[in-house]
Amino acid sequence: MTAQHRLDLHADVVDLTEQLVNIESVSRDEQAIADAVETALRDVGHLEVTRHGHTVVARTQLDRSERVVIAGHLDTVPVNDNLPARREGGLLHGLGTCDMKGGVAVGLSLAATLPEPERDVTYIFYEAEEIDAEFNGLFLLSRSAPELMEADFAILMEPSNAVVEAGCQGTLRVAVRTTGERAHSARSWMGVNAIHAAAGILDRLAGYEARRPVIDGLEYHEGLNAVSISGGVAGNVIPDECTVEVNHRFAPDRSVEEAEAFLREFFEGYDVRVTDAAPGALPGLSVPAAAAFLEAVGGQANPKFGWTDVSRFSGLGVPAVNFGPGDPLLAHKQDEHVPVEHITRCDRQLRRWLGGAR
Amino acid sequence: MTAQHRLDLHADVVDLTEQLVNIESVSRDEQAIADAVETALRDVGHLEVTRHGHTVVARTQLDRSERVVIAGHLDTVPVNDNLPARREGGLLHGLGTCDMKGGVAVGLSLAATLPEPERDVTYIFYEAEEIDAEFNGLFLLSRSAPELMEADFAILMEPSNAVVEAGCQGTLRVAVRTTGERAHSARSWMGVNAIHAAAGILDRLAGYEARRPVIDGLEYHEGLNAVSISGGVAGNVIPDECTVEVNHRFAPDRSVEEAEAFLREFFEGYDVRVTDAAPGALPGLSVPAAAAFLEAVGGQANPKFGWTDVSRFSGLGVPAVNFGPGDPLLAHKQDEHVPVEHITRCDRQLRRWLGGAR
Repeated sequence: MTAQHRLDLHADVVDLTEQLVNIESVSRDEQAIADAVETALRDVGHLEVTRHGHTVVARTQLDRSERVVIAGHLDTVPVNDNLPARREGGLLHGLGTCDMKGGVAVGLSLAATLPEPERDVTYIFYEAEEIDAEFNGLFLLSRSAPELMEADFAILMEPSNAVVEAGCQGTLRVAVRTTGERAHSARSWMGVNAIHAAAGILDRLAGYEARRPVIDGLEYHEGLNAVSISGGVAGNVIPDECTVEVNHRFAPDRSVEEAEAFLREFFEGYDVRVTDAAPGALPGLSVPAAAAFLEAVGGQANPKFGWTDVSRFSGLGVPAVNFGPGDPLLAHKQDEHVPVEHITRCDRQLRRWLGGAR
Repeated sequence: MTAQHRLDLHADVVDLTEQLVNIESVSRDEQAIADAVETALRDVGHLEVTRHGHTVVARTQLDRSERVVIAGHLDTVPVNDNLPARREGGLLHGLGTCDMKGGVAVGLSLAATLPEPERDVTYIFYEAEEIDAEFNGLFLLSRSAPELMEADFAILMEPSNAVVEAGCQGTLRVAVRTTGERAHSARSWMGVNAIHAAAGILDRLAGYEARRPVIDGLEYHEGLNAVSISGGVAGNVIPDECTVEVNHRFAPDRSVEEAEAFLREFFEGYDVRVTDAAPGALPGLSVPAAAAFLEAVGGQANPKFGWTDVSRFSGLGVPAVNFGPGDPLLAHKQDEHVPVEHITRCDRQLRRWLGGAR
């Protein structure tokens, strides 16, 4: 193991964010940052540290009545001329400042400086969140060592403007297909145009009205959109097939099966094939650990629209929320940045909730 | 020049068709067949023969008051387990039997056996009709030696069920585009879906009613069809662009410019860009040489819907028709074949029209 980068977990949490940002860690290239994180955590006496690929898990073992997870991913989307980090006024600029090294810095700072929190904590710093699910460190951990993810409650420190975002919407992708009959376009009346037939699919999509159910006091907002369309054989051939790929985002009061049934009814008369599905996650704000956390951070919660890894915890029966510094709308943008105040506020609020500061 | 294949131009015209079919000549691989044709024609005393790439031109020089062109392409679409030629009942099966070595055989037979036709004849056997226009032997000839294409009338021996097909429809291809605004599909209401916007384009296409103008007694039949559609950025992104490629086939009473104006009005409100255009050709059946020919072959003519090389002659001011053995609907099919009777009938009718048999 090489550890060219050294992290000072006892530094100011904003300085620590900057240190993390300056270790380049595009997905599938997380060795350096995972090494640095592992090395720094192994120096912390009160933690039990294990490594799984480029995912690092550190746990307190205090036999508390509750255990909570604090998790963040180490990887970023590709570099876009936005490194190294740059501080300007109250903002820290650079790749990963928002998504999500501010949150990782808070987690690492808590891990190093809270030897006796009131709740046992499992810190998870994981790889490959920004790419295909098969590489996702949390997914891999849920397969190889799911016991490490067991907890009463989990906090994913994804950017959420330092406000709790609860639950997440599910996602379903279907291919909706029309068929026709090929013919030479010079004698088009001999064929049946499958692209023209797709007008009906697009008309239904254009007329879709989103459901906005309220769950645990949070208003969700569904979506139904064509994300791709393709069809065509050659410039002089009436096409015999057209496929519209549709992405449905559904509120967590529906299961994948219910969402699929809705789509099949919506597209009745067309060939519908499911290509991808992931369930949503109910906000779960009524469980005691979640309610206590929500109160500790000011009582405000927003619904989470995007699918996030909180759903992986829900799948294991662990209520989970997003809570982290940064505006999610800035994630993956070239000019990504995070307000310094978000980082310090998240740090302060989590510290108060966990208690046991030295 | 190698000439492994020898053609007997004095053979029965159906035998000659079979000989031609058995010289494989997929587009861009016409050397062998062009060599065989050139060699055989150079043995015919009454013809002036020139070669241009793999296109062979042979002319009588009798100072007749009229000159006509008889033309056919030597190439075929790719082999599809349909060689060599096979005769069964009244049909000759095999690649190129229909499109269009039956017609080429008729032309070659006439060239060899009519030393003193009543009209001067320019026979053109050309390469690369089945592929991109830039390789087309007639196109190349119209650039390098257009004087060889000058005539009062031209007959392209493309399959037309041994009935005159007059004129041809033009073709215009346009890209019709919608734009929108990208957003993450989890927050789709932040964006504008360009694929949904294409519903309007497809609705108009689905509602199109074809114009069927009658010209010189022939009823044409226009067409307007999407031939491809594409759009989409990623499975979780609201797409900001969608392009429908549309092919318009228009009757020869409209110029390319008029057809384009029609399309721009039809798709008003959308971004329309012309990607490809070729004019139609008026039937021209009223010019004396054409009228005489039509009468000689029985007086019946049908409109030609597809775009063919007759348009190249029209562009040079030469009225032209299609007239050849074989059903055009069988062209490019694996089980392509030609009725033997079509070949002999075309041969007999042209022979009678040209006169001067030995």
